[in-house]
Amino acid sequence: MAQRSPRKSLQLNRANTPINFSGPMQDVNVISDHMLKVEWRNGLGWSNPQIIQSGPIALHPFAHVFHYANECYEGMKAYIDSNGNVRMFRPEKNMERLNFSASRLCLPAFNGEELLKCIEALLKVDKEWIPRKKGYAMYLRPLIFSTTPWLGLTQTSEAHLYVMMSPVGPYFKSGFVPIKLAVDSKWIRAWPGGTGNVKFGGNYSPTVMAQRDAANAGASQALFVYDKEQYITEAGTMNIFLFWKNNMGEIELVTPSLEDGTILAGITRQSVIDLAREWGECKVTERMLPLQEVLDAFIREDVYEIFGTGTAAVIQPISSISYDGIDYSVPKNAFSENAFQVRMTNTLTAIQYGEIDHPWSRVVA
Amino acid sequence: MAQRSPRKSLQLNRANTPINFSGPMQDVNVISDHMLKVEWRNGLGWSNPQIIQSGPIALHPFAHVFHYANECYEGMKAYIDSNGNVRMFRPEKNMERLNFSASRLCLPAFNGEELLKCIEALLKVDKEWIPRKKGYAMYLRPLIFSTTPWLGLTQTSEAHLYVMMSPVGPYFKSGFVPIKLAVDSKWIRAWPGGTGNVKFGGNYSPTVMAQRDAANAGASQALFVYDKEQYITEAGTMNIFLFWKNNMGEIELVTPSLEDGTILAGITRQSVIDLAREWGECKVTERMLPLQEVLDAFIREDVYEIFGTGTAAVIQPISSISYDGIDYSVPKNAFSENAFQVRMTNTLTAIQYGEIDHPWSRVVA
Repeated sequence: MAQRSPRKSLQLNRANTPINFSGPMQDVNVISDHMLKVEWRNGLGWSNPQIIQSGPIALHPFAHVFHYANECYEGMKAYIDSNGNVRMFRPEKNMERLNFSASRLCLPAFNGEELLKCIEALLKVDKEWIPRKKGYAMYLRPLIFSTTPWLGLTQTSEAHLYVMMSPVGPYFKSGFVPIKLAVDSKWIRAWPGGTGNVKFGGNYSPTVMAQRDAANAGASQALFVYDKEQYITEAGTMNIFLFWKNNMGEIELVTPSLEDGTILAGITRQSVIDLAREWGECKVTERMLPLQEVLDAFIREDVYEIFGTGTAAVIQPISSISYDGIDYSVPKNAFSENAFQVRMTNTLTAIQYGEIDHPWSRVVA
Repeated sequence: MAQRSPRKSLQLNRANTPINFSGPMQDVNVISDHMLKVEWRNGLGWSNPQIIQSGPIALHPFAHVFHYANECYEGMKAYIDSNGNVRMFRPEKNMERLNFSASRLCLPAFNGEELLKCIEALLKVDKEWIPRKKGYAMYLRPLIFSTTPWLGLTQTSEAHLYVMMSPVGPYFKSGFVPIKLAVDSKWIRAWPGGTGNVKFGGNYSPTVMAQRDAANAGASQALFVYDKEQYITEAGTMNIFLFWKNNMGEIELVTPSLEDGTILAGITRQSVIDLAREWGECKVTERMLPLQEVLDAFIREDVYEIFGTGTAAVIQPISSISYDGIDYSVPKNAFSENAFQVRMTNTLTAIQYGEIDHPWSRVVA
């Protein structure tokens, strides 16, 4: 029961600090009626999965997730095809990655195929919530966090697994909307030996500052680099691709490699690599990519297209990269019907909505 | 309302994965009767602070703290002196650091002196909970996290500030208990441009793995290093000091410097530096400290003492560092009554319990 404020005059606002962020979001995302909940206890394992009404999550004030960020998650989508079937896109990859993330944080592992069965059950219960138009989908958020009610940092003794859902509209309401990136060499997103390849909450909140700096520089997202060589890693919360003529004169699709563990192994990223190899139009390369090499290619006018990849946007076209006061832009035809990224988007979404029969798309409900 | 499990046979335990961690903690820390709660909203600022009964914290399932680790905290202690006064140790430093942490994560800033008044009010309400014996204290956990109920990563629109309390016993129940460290060169705690100098949840959960590796190597804590030079940064969740004859033949107290932002600016750390300078017994240095320089000094038998510092232990004596299969140990007299770390511990605790009159100790209730 709440008591009155200890002193009526107490207030925490600092006179000289503006309390208004320039941030967006007035709205609140909509959560579907139900969510999946599974509890884990050391020595007992996972409880019976339950589909419960969506509502507040109540935890002990000492729960580790509030203090030590023992939390990892996934982003997935479910689509309704023209036959009314519910489809998911390579969902087993999300299960693998969530287990990988959990293991890095000493959170409990689980059986991915069993969790997918639970997700199917959840989608059936809330099927009416899944939007039926092309471009629309149900976004799914599997999430594991430690509820260990111990004030010190320890191994996890208790954890919760949730799957929450939110219907989402098309990322681009009126066709492709390319965005600007600003190179951020001040804030380093990830480092070898860290957690850059883990879908871990702690990778994300530190990038809010970079996002604000990018917005102040007139860009939509930060382009993260690291080390003296300014290796390109990720753009905002997306993987990044270049379609260009490289410095050997070859037409190439290139994306930063996963070798040093600083980059999230995106499922859309892997799908773009796989499809591009299948298409055979160009060399397809994963390697360390110093920023200067990219800027040099811009100066030679050899950069044809740049795009980000992720579950939310699928493909996010990029119009320019701002660095050191200079804007490096891709040509206008980067966004034409025949552009690599446009054809890739069309193919991927056709697979996701079951218009092309493909093993990556799984009918789940 | 909970529904039944979607399929009775569903279960997430993976046949081949052991679900038992070798972790400790069977007990649950005790929380005092009350906690302080203040809510923040973009555009409205902080609400009236309230002292409420301790109980579960209930948040929207999309609250950012669960997904993106927008959270930072402090650790402080309140002590009862021989006159029955409640004292705190340099609490304004914790307020400064919490504001610094919040600013790095784009969480709201607050007026530190006003929050200290709220903390005093909380300590008065739960004064009977503060243990009265020397060595015992009330541990306080100020905590700010984003409750923004938006599924995407955005600027913070809503946040909560809590102060929770837990009575704690002496860190060492029977005198000094030195611990072993194991050098961890696999997991990197922090890097320049990251969040190593921020008391941010995301710095902590990734170290649970390092802690487990250290335990498997027979040590209590990991000694974190980074970069090719293997610069020493922190030991577990503590700052680290060496008392030694350096390679110039000088008697020196040395601790890693704060210059590159990889190290938490510990308040006990700063207090040890300040007192050592006042004592004038030795050179006192903050600088980058390559591991090899320390190992060389061990081989010369020039390392006299190593200790960690932090709010929990004040001073944590270290007996040995294990690296590459070799144990490097300090001499036995490192823990004698006359040792630097023992005298430092005695002085700091005498200040904390008001036995020595010192401006660092503030009577608050």
